[in-house]
Amino acid sequence: MTSVISLLSDYGLEDGYIAACHGVIVGISPESRIIDVCHLVPSGDVRRGAAILAQTIAYLPSGVHVALVDPGGGSRRAVAVEAGEHVFLGPDNGLLSWAIHASGGARAAYELTNTDLFLQPVSPTFHGRDLFAPVAAHLAIGRHPSELGQEIPLERLVSLPAPTSVLQEDCVEGEVLSIDRHGNAQLSIGSGALATLGVAPGETLVVWLGRRRLSVPFKESFASVPPGEIVAFTDSAGLVALAVNSGDASQQLGLPPGAHVRLSPCP
Amino acid sequence: MTSVISLLSDYGLEDGYIAACHGVIVGISPESRIIDVCHLVPSGDVRRGAAILAQTIAYLPSGVHVALVDPGGGSRRAVAVEAGEHVFLGPDNGLLSWAIHASGGARAAYELTNTDLFLQPVSPTFHGRDLFAPVAAHLAIGRHPSELGQEIPLERLVSLPAPTSVLQEDCVEGEVLSIDRHGNAQLSIGSGALATLGVAPGETLVVWLGRRRLSVPFKESFASVPPGEIVAFTDSAGLVALAVNSGDASQQLGLPPGAHVRLSPCP
Amino acid sequence: MTSVISLLSDYGLEDGYIAACHGVIVGISPESRIIDVCHLVPSGDVRRGAAILAQTIAYLPSGVHVALVDPGGGSRRAVAVEAGEHVFLGPDNGLLSWAIHASGGARAAYELTNTDLFLQPVSPTFHGRDLFAPVAAHLAIGRHPSELGQEIPLERLVSLPAPTSVLQEDCVEGEVLSIDRHGNAQLSIGSGALATLGVAPGETLVVWLGRRRLSVPFKESFASVPPGEIVAFTDSAGLVALAVNSGDASQQLGLPPGAHVRLSPCP
Repeated sequence: MTSVISLLSDYGLEDGYIAACHGVIVGISPESRIIDVCHLVPSGDVRRGAAILAQTIAYLPSGVHVALVDPGGGSRRAVAVEAGEHVFLGPDNGLLSWAIHASGGARAAYELTNTDLFLQPVSPTFHGRDLFAPVAAHLAIGRHPSELGQEIPLERLVSLPAPTSVLQEDCVEGEVLSIDRHGNAQLSIGSGALATLGVAPGETLVVWLGRRRLSVPFKESFASVPPGEIVAFTDSAGLVALAVNSGDASQQLGLPPGAHVRLSPCP
Repeated sequence: MTSVISLLSDYGLEDGYIAACHGVIVGISPESRIIDVCHLVPSGDVRRGAAILAQTIAYLPSGVHVALVDPGGGSRRAVAVEAGEHVFLGPDNGLLSWAIHASGGARAAYELTNTDLFLQPVSPTFHGRDLFAPVAAHLAIGRHPSELGQEIPLERLVSLPAPTSVLQEDCVEGEVLSIDRHGNAQLSIGSGALATLGVAPGETLVVWLGRRRLSVPFKESFASVPPGEIVAFTDSAGLVALAVNSGDASQQLGLPPGAHVRLSPCP
Repeated sequence: MTSVISLLSDYGLEDGYIAACHGVIVGISPESRIIDVCHLVPSGDVRRGAAILAQTIAYLPSGVHVALVDPGGGSRRAVAVEAGEHVFLGPDNGLLSWAIHASGGARAAYELTNTDLFLQPVSPTFHGRDLFAPVAAHLAIGRHPSELGQEIPLERLVSLPAPTSVLQEDCVEGEVLSIDRHGNAQLSIGSGALATLGVAPGETLVVWLGRRRLSVPFKESFASVPPGEIVAFTDSAGLVALAVNSGDASQQLGLPPGAHVRLSPCP
């Protein structure tokens, strides 16, 4: 059976770092299929890495998923977490937490202390190549996670705070979760909240950005308005997004990740 | 037998979008080999996507080729087109047309209406993941294109206008088809037109850019002139290209895609 | 048995060039696994391409390794070089030399003159697709390097000068070998030289950049100092690197590739 190993990192594509990880995996598990989830996570941006993994995991086959955004370097635990049909590997800094939640929650977790499975010597600055890649490959060829090291109580795993989204009687408040390449601003607000507020596609939303108040049509997609116009729609992750058709909503509206946003029905 | 699925898009590499498509394909057709043609097509640039696919297709194995540059979102038909040994999948907005032409022309076309093959629910903003990826995978495991939906008369398929190239008695007129990473300007003029005009490699061309007139050596490659000098050569697609050795011809000459260019022999 | 073919180039990711090479390989050798080492080598930067390949090769499975950074175009020999368990393919311009050295040195070298193995016609500007890719695939399906063309005396292969690193009684001099995406400056100085000078992790180094003198802690990793502070550490290639935690050392210290650096123990 073909096993799947996915890789996400902030390593970028300008070096041979990803290839070294691929090479280590193929050397141990020649039959594994490797899927590169994304290697352009902004350097050290654990939250953005967590969001990408969490929004992609439902579409990846069951397998081993390695995530490597690790601003603290080797000064945290390395863990393996079983959730759903997946095993997640990465630093215990919250990076995995949203994907674990999206996969049904952790069933078991282990600290990666079985050094027999590492490349030796382990470079303190490249755990991806020397620690996580070989461990992923060993799981792919049949090792059980319990062979990786000491079990960890689940409540000890580091979690990122869930993005805030507060549904009130007449509005929903949230934040900009991430900005994609087109400049679309994905909010931490599920489209279900708008339904609860009685806003249906085709209607108009009031969007509060700090003190600014915008009237924005809530449509099927970014392409449902003329080029240059602002639109809200349900994105491919089921979240409300603000876009400018053929434009860059994040720049045009001044919306960085984390910016506070409030949505309400048009009175 | 290994089946090949290729993917081209303007999704960029900063998100998990491509990985989601890979994951969906692997889930349905674990044996398929996926070739990423290019995911950095400028956002919404149908013409550039069409040019890349058309110039690459002759070097790809027979298979299923998915192209996803879709500025209009879901407001067009999704189609499958059989041409040569390939099946092309994409929006019916002209994106596929040059590659279909390069593959010998369309033999049959189908609208993708068989929703049994889609992921459900289909996100209106991510047909790549929910519609095209699973359909490609179903073709790869043996479905026939006729199972995808209603057949479409070939003359109803949307085509991009072919890039203009007009051969006259003493000159050939065309346009800048695309600019590559090195700044080389690929023209819509095949090197055969220069041969017809009697210009052989080693001779000098007159290049008209609007009212500007340049004398440019026509050489074997961009490296046949000293660094910093302008050169014309036959590029890897058999088209005439203008380059500056170790420089950026597009910037230096002010040549955007679509710019009009006239070439004639040196009198 | 699965064969591995790796590819490194300065082709960038904005065109279909890499995909054309993949397609040619898969057409000839459907079972090969392709590992993309890096395609964002700065255009024409042979030295940077050589450094990336040399620092990655120890982690790649035995196989065929194609490197394509070729500012001189077709005006040099194309070669195959056997070293260790690898066959390296590329232009004979020094690009392969550091990786060959890292693999134990060349055992045999051949000029690629057997045109039966090329795609015809060979584009003068795309040897990667028409010459190196098909030759790599033919090696992968069992051809012996001696079938590729005339054997070349090893001393005739072009080599890059090794990066300078001079160990003196009280200091070690070297240069900036490369800058990674995070701005870390990798020096041509192995960490062994520091050990010889009696500098142990945890101690302080004197770093001379021209006339500037800095006191820099020598630590386990870039993360061993507070954000914003300069640090020296042994990087994942075993070389001394200068970094700024969560910052860009190259920019902050004005350290381009090739810059001269001298290290000595703190007196």
